[in-house]
Amino acid sequence: MTTQQLTNQIKKKQSFLCIGLDVDLNKIPKYLLKEEDPIFAFNKAIIDATHHLCVAYKPNTAFYEAYGLKGWKALEKTINYLNENHPEIYTIADAKRGDIGNTSTMYAKAFFEDLGFDSVTVAPYMGKDSVEPFLAFEDKHTILLALTSNQGAFDFQTKSVDGIELYKQVLETSKTWKSSENLMYVVGATKAEYLANIRKIVPDSFLLVPGVGAQGGNLQDVCKYGMNDSIGLLINSSRGIIYASQDETFAQAAAKKAEDLQMQMKAELKRHSK
Amino acid sequence: MTTQQLTNQIKKKQSFLCIGLDVDLNKIPKYLLKEEDPIFAFNKAIIDATHHLCVAYKPNTAFYEAYGLKGWKALEKTINYLNENHPEIYTIADAKRGDIGNTSTMYAKAFFEDLGFDSVTVAPYMGKDSVEPFLAFEDKHTILLALTSNQGAFDFQTKSVDGIELYKQVLETSKTWKSSENLMYVVGATKAEYLANIRKIVPDSFLLVPGVGAQGGNLQDVCKYGMNDSIGLLINSSRGIIYASQDETFAQAAAKKAEDLQMQMKAELKRHSK
Repeated sequence: MTTQQLTNQIKKKQSFLCIGLDVDLNKIPKYLLKEEDPIFAFNKAIIDATHHLCVAYKPNTAFYEAYGLKGWKALEKTINYLNENHPEIYTIADAKRGDIGNTSTMYAKAFFEDLGFDSVTVAPYMGKDSVEPFLAFEDKHTILLALTSNQGAFDFQTKSVDGIELYKQVLETSKTWKSSENLMYVVGATKAEYLANIRKIVPDSFLLVPGVGAQGGNLQDVCKYGMNDSIGLLINSSRGIIYASQDETFAQAAAKKAEDLQMQMKAELKRHSK
Repeated sequence: MTTQQLTNQIKKKQSFLCIGLDVDLNKIPKYLLKEEDPIFAFNKAIIDATHHLCVAYKPNTAFYEAYGLKGWKALEKTINYLNENHPEIYTIADAKRGDIGNTSTMYAKAFFEDLGFDSVTVAPYMGKDSVEPFLAFEDKHTILLALTSNQGAFDFQTKSVDGIELYKQVLETSKTWKSSENLMYVVGATKAEYLANIRKIVPDSFLLVPGVGAQGGNLQDVCKYGMNDSIGLLINSSRGIIYASQDETFAQAAAKKAEDLQMQMKAELKRHSK
């Protein structure tokens, strides 16, 4: 999917919501555990109830790998279900990968070709030749970690590197890489005050913004400082939506939470006249 | 496995060789493709032929994920085969993971509990709360990326952060984290000249050193600057060993390459009187 198509979907649905499918078997309704594939059953119900309210889904691979083969199978079924039934939905493998060149190529094949995701999150620590193999895939996006939503972001990301914070160095440097037009960036909603400066470096890039909801980020601040002419934002909520209820009403409860966010996003789009 | 047990194995086998099991179906002998599980068949043959010459195996998860469910199954079979038949061998999941706290816990469970690896490689970009969930597992090790073997290491890792190179900041800072005694570090063999300074910061830690062989690192230099009283080195070779031959002799050819390295390591242990 191109970013233009993504922007079109956002305007059509009046939503730039991404729903994180981080399925923890200890947190889903107990009765689902009787299903042959509880993880997929949970995801399917969430997708069926919320797909008209969001433009993207983001399974975090950790939650699938933790269940071994069954987990990987549930991830495959989930992405296949999305691609078959909702091809207009943007899909993100939140995998935070990155390795030397030939190995990154294998990861890129895993997520873009074998699983058929539109994008994958990648860590920048190993530099250019660890990221370019992902960028080489046409019509796919590489979402580079820039400034993450957690407290640990202050350990290295905000430290001054040759006079400029590391996350800014990552933004500036990555713009020079081959096929950098395929880049998006992760910026935590808990760091909204940084967004104005980030937009000076990457005015046109889409930003994936986690941290609204359970982690305490503010939607209005993110829009104020982060929205651009193409909207340029995907705001993710995971736990705040998918675990809204733990009984039979979980999918409707999730839809209600998603709708709350979508209504706020609609208001923001109106405020910014998009 | 404790580091003391690992050191004992190194002294017993006169080897600190780690063999990287990075299986690419385009590079293994053609006749193996007829097997039900070619990846495991290849790994099993390599392990059977080389286990007496090395102290560790390191599957890189990218090469398994690229083949989807079949790949993940082959990874499971490989680690189970190692744990059942060679419990004295140290195992490393080269996964380069790292995420916010609750997510890193899921990754740690995946590799330490579900798959039963002794250790996992982790990227430091997201800081303390992304790494400590891995460190919380007793008798397991977290191998943090410090200075990697690729060219991209110079993009960020060697840049000066508040007057000290980023990889040194990673070493210094990580020492203050909870259960930091469970840390090891990745330092590329292609950066051997940096090892003397690295040893000043982490004199006692084990270092996982890739890059000897295909990537051009020098074994003698790594030992000169990197060896400590507990040896403290695991030197990895992947392609240089496992793809030594592409015909029926591949396992013996791999053993020959492994033996060449083991003999060099024996000489180094003698030179340093270990």
